[in-house]
Amino acid sequence: MPTLEVWIEYSSTYSWLTVARIGRLTAERGVALDWQPFFLPPVREQQGLGFPFPEGSAKTAYMWRDLERRAATLGVPFRKPEAYPVNSLPTARVAMVGTREGWCQRFTEEAFRLHWTEGCAIGSDENLQRALDALGLDAAAVRERANAAENKEALKGQTARAVQRGLFGAPSFVVEGELFWGDDRLEEAVAWAAQGKVRG
Amino acid sequence: MPTLEVWIEYSSTYSWLTVARIGRLTAERGVALDWQPFFLPPVREQQGLGFPFPEGSAKTAYMWRDLERRAATLGVPFRKPEAYPVNSLPTARVAMVGTREGWCQRFTEEAFRLHWTEGCAIGSDENLQRALDALGLDAAAVRERANAAENKEALKGQTARAVQRGLFGAPSFVVEGELFWGDDRLEEAVAWAAQGKVRG
Repeated sequence: MPTLEVWIEYSSTYSWLTVARIGRLTAERGVALDWQPFFLPPVREQQGLGFPFPEGSAKTAYMWRDLERRAATLGVPFRKPEAYPVNSLPTARVAMVGTREGWCQRFTEEAFRLHWTEGCAIGSDENLQRALDALGLDAAAVRERANAAENKEALKGQTARAVQRGLFGAPSFVVEGELFWGDDRLEEAVAWAAQGKVRG
Repeated sequence: MPTLEVWIEYSSTYSWLTVARIGRLTAERGVALDWQPFFLPPVREQQGLGFPFPEGSAKTAYMWRDLERRAATLGVPFRKPEAYPVNSLPTARVAMVGTREGWCQRFTEEAFRLHWTEGCAIGSDENLQRALDALGLDAAAVRERANAAENKEALKGQTARAVQRGLFGAPSFVVEGELFWGDDRLEEAVAWAAQGKVRG
């Protein structure tokens, strides 16, 4: 089964459009997902890139309007969250546990859904509790595994792997050495995984 | 007739995909084009944004690969130019003359085509000469009008107008206060102009 690596940063705004759609899009094309949670700030720092959406900038104002408009176009529910930016580190650590235990996708979908439709901020204790509850997991036990030294190291290791793949933003998709950046490239990445190139 | 403002920076790489497609896409939808040449660096400077594609960065490497892949997907001819970045100022000044004299679109299409399919660099004397020749214009006379003080001032005035519209990159499209940034949003911008929103 063709497989697509999905590199997810949990504070990324456009990633909501991807998380809300990727399960259905890949199921339709028979593409498996290899979830790769990571923490983007150190990756961008290594590449001399700053935070992409400075407060009060025209670019940031555009991002919010574009996101709302794209969500409407794509039929993705959208409620602008009050919290921005959020501290995604606790969520990324939990997601790393999920990659080993097979529930990263369901957790990611639920954590993002709570943030983007219910205003329950990604990174908050409530978001983690509710997302893990929804999966029928013992939240306290999962968070203990998430905060174990080896799990923290595993997440740090994702930074070097991301840099090696040429990543600089999120969401990113990788299939057989081909990198696709941004929700705008989701369909192309899935098509590349399914058939080895963008067009049939 | 609904009208779409097209903000063009002549050194922008992704703008080739737009320039190669916008004439046909808008003609199909009955949308008129209002060409707005501008010089992007001072706009980004005012917004605290640097050059988006630093030499040797992962982001720049990705841009070239993505551009080539997108061109293939969209059926746009593409030959990676040797010259990058180019000095687009002389071309922007000529294009400003074109907005007053009604040939900005044809000039833009030809200047970009020469750069992106024949390696004749935008901003060079040869590119300007050949593009203006192709339009049947007196290149020397046009360039004299382009270098007149009032034309230079007109181009400088575009910076303030761009900032007023919330622009920070190119290509950008504006219709009734709605801003769309990037070739990725070309279809949405044309749809918005044609019917007042993205989806019918």
